[in-house]
Amino acid sequence: MAEHIVSSYENELRGLAAKIAEMGGMAEGLVADAVQALTRMDTALAQKVILTDTRLDRLQREVEQNAILVIARRQPMAVDLREVVGALRVSSDLERVGDLAKNIAKRVMAIGPNLNAKTALIGVEHLSEIALEQLKAVLDAYTARDDASALKVRDRDDEIDALYTSLFRELLTYMMEDPRSISSCAHLLFVAKNIERIGDHTTNIAETVHYVVTGEQMTDERPKSDASSLLKVAGQE
Amino acid sequence: MAEHIVSSYENELRGLAAKIAEMGGMAEGLVADAVQALTRMDTALAQKVILTDTRLDRLQREVEQNAILVIARRQPMAVDLREVVGALRVSSDLERVGDLAKNIAKRVMAIGPNLNAKTALIGVEHLSEIALEQLKAVLDAYTARDDASALKVRDRDDEIDALYTSLFRELLTYMMEDPRSISSCAHLLFVAKNIERIGDHTTNIAETVHYVVTGEQMTDERPKSDASSLLKVAGQE
Repeated sequence: MAEHIVSSYENELRGLAAKIAEMGGMAEGLVADAVQALTRMDTALAQKVILTDTRLDRLQREVEQNAILVIARRQPMAVDLREVVGALRVSSDLERVGDLAKNIAKRVMAIGPNLNAKTALIGVEHLSEIALEQLKAVLDAYTARDDASALKVRDRDDEIDALYTSLFRELLTYMMEDPRSISSCAHLLFVAKNIERIGDHTTNIAETVHYVVTGEQMTDERPKSDASSLLKVAGQE
Repeated sequence: MAEHIVSSYENELRGLAAKIAEMGGMAEGLVADAVQALTRMDTALAQKVILTDTRLDRLQREVEQNAILVIARRQPMAVDLREVVGALRVSSDLERVGDLAKNIAKRVMAIGPNLNAKTALIGVEHLSEIALEQLKAVLDAYTARDDASALKVRDRDDEIDALYTSLFRELLTYMMEDPRSISSCAHLLFVAKNIERIGDHTTNIAETVHYVVTGEQMTDERPKSDASSLLKVAGQE
């Protein structure tokens, strides 16, 4: 293969990697801003999140187009092909992380400034801190193509699931104790669920890193300990 | 291009189409079964949904692999390339529809047989009927590469969003009127949200049909009338 072709191929791969890095930074920022908008009831920041998410969507389409061009032009094999498939998968997960952040931002407006279940926000904030740490860690693992770190992130998702389940229970308890909090807490249930799902996308990215590095697909369902969808609360039907 | 190559290329495209058709039928079945499991409180059927979803996940990975092979081997251009990209996108949406159906099935176990907000189920059932009709219609539009029908499906998503918003409000009212229903109704909130999101994936598929047929991307956010994330209920904070 002629030198200029190799180098333009490498440029194409580097271009994909740069776009994914940009998407990763943007997705992290959206999640952090959405949670901050919620805890500070900052509707201007919430609006910013909603607007910025459209840029993330656009980047995802660009990654898709570029990845397909690379596959068609270069017919990459083995690890090169896995790189391109990995870019496709990671960009799709990051785009959804942005959607989830946007949904949290929208709920800031619904909850309004009079939330009386303020202690519930502490749980939400704590959950989001861990989710954000995990997201950062997996993006670093992706950049470094570091399989061991990616698998560590994957294993830690159980922690998010367990915290989410306990927060779900806590929010139901607030609703029972004070029916005036039902509307706000219903929105917080969805916020918590969104953060738990950000954790799932982080896990997907960890599995993609493993696939890119080793060629091995993790198709088996990972052990899930989010039991909230199976949860009954004592004293409830 | 030699005849046998053309014919094997066509076979590859036909193979992709067949897998998408299989996924579509399976996704429809999962949604219908999950809602039936809920309305009849049939935990055996709910278990079946959870198991069947793993087959849908497997099919999605197969479509991804085959689509990438086709792109690398054939370097399709124009409408052929759009066909393959379309298959990738539709299979990803159908896989997520399956996940949402599985999540509904899991909640059947949590809600249990003593749901006293039985009238709330009527709303859920009605919402799911429309979502299922729409999903069937968009899969037919995809099979027929019928842009006009796909756009009709896309326009009708507003109806699902409006119904979802009213169901959200109704469920909050049940919770306020009878705190013993809070736990069940919280799960029904998520069930309703899952169905609304199935509608969003249906819309995505409609937009993919439009892209495959016309080459035009619908990147603009469609007009959304799901206002539930902005919803405050009178008398609530």
